[in-house]
Amino acid sequence: MTATRTHETQIDVDPRVPLVRITREFDAPREKVFRAHTDPDLLARWLGPRRYEMRVEQYDCRTGGSYRYVHVGGDAEFGFHGSFHEVRAPELIVQTFTYEGVPDGVALERLVLEDIGGGRTRLVATSLVDSFEARDAFVASGMEEGVREGYERLDELLSA
Amino acid sequence: MTATRTHETQIDVDPRVPLVRITREFDAPREKVFRAHTDPDLLARWLGPRRYEMRVEQYDCRTGGSYRYVHVGGDAEFGFHGSFHEVRAPELIVQTFTYEGVPDGVALERLVLEDIGGGRTRLVATSLVDSFEARDAFVASGMEEGVREGYERLDELLSA
Repeated sequence: MTATRTHETQIDVDPRVPLVRITREFDAPREKVFRAHTDPDLLARWLGPRRYEMRVEQYDCRTGGSYRYVHVGGDAEFGFHGSFHEVRAPELIVQTFTYEGVPDGVALERLVLEDIGGGRTRLVATSLVDSFEARDAFVASGMEEGVREGYERLDELLSA
Repeated sequence: MTATRTHETQIDVDPRVPLVRITREFDAPREKVFRAHTDPDLLARWLGPRRYEMRVEQYDCRTGGSYRYVHVGGDAEFGFHGSFHEVRAPELIVQTFTYEGVPDGVALERLVLEDIGGGRTRLVATSLVDSFEARDAFVASGMEEGVREGYERLDELLSA
């Protein structure tokens, strides 16, 4: 049995700008956490809540690439797409993000991975939108549960 | 001699979010204004101040594409790059934008073209960044002059 230590996922809303900041540590080296974000086969094993299957339609994770994936739960499908502005291994991914249920909405996302020693990694993921209303609706949508559960799945993948 | 009517370029900073909004009308149909943004050969004839030559290295203006171009003035070169999140003819372009002099800076840009009748078009271009300091530094950098002069050049191109 694997003793997977689960860290707290901290989710902060910025008081000054319409941005959400997620902070999370992982007991795994930065290269491994990075690859779990760039390799679509790995990504599909942890991103989002357990109750959804993830179907990756396109995932060209390099500077100038783009992506689309679908979360499938029963009859419901939720599509997401965007483009990769910059992918700098093993530390940075800047990308756009649209949930297709709100087709005109778009977020600018930045993922930063920091090596904090001892084979551990701190992840800071920010998501910027153009209004506080959109940001607060995103937080109120229940994203917290999906984010926390996804990172627990990522813990399991990294320790496997 | 061509009597090119020059409209005012309005540049507003949003009081609530770190965003700049540019509003400008053109005496040309929306399809033509749109094409001047998506066709790299046309773009190179108007984007930016007159004193720079524009060298387009890559310009794949479609949803999921990317771009890089360089403004050249004498010995100085200024590079810019980004990815296209969404390109929806003839009305919308959502893209990322980095000036390579500030390589970690990135803006989320949205261009909306509205048909206002009589063969005229209103352009609204917004640029969102993650801090007021970055937004205000961008405005203070002299971008206004380049934007105004670029749109005067676009007037000339559209009326040619």
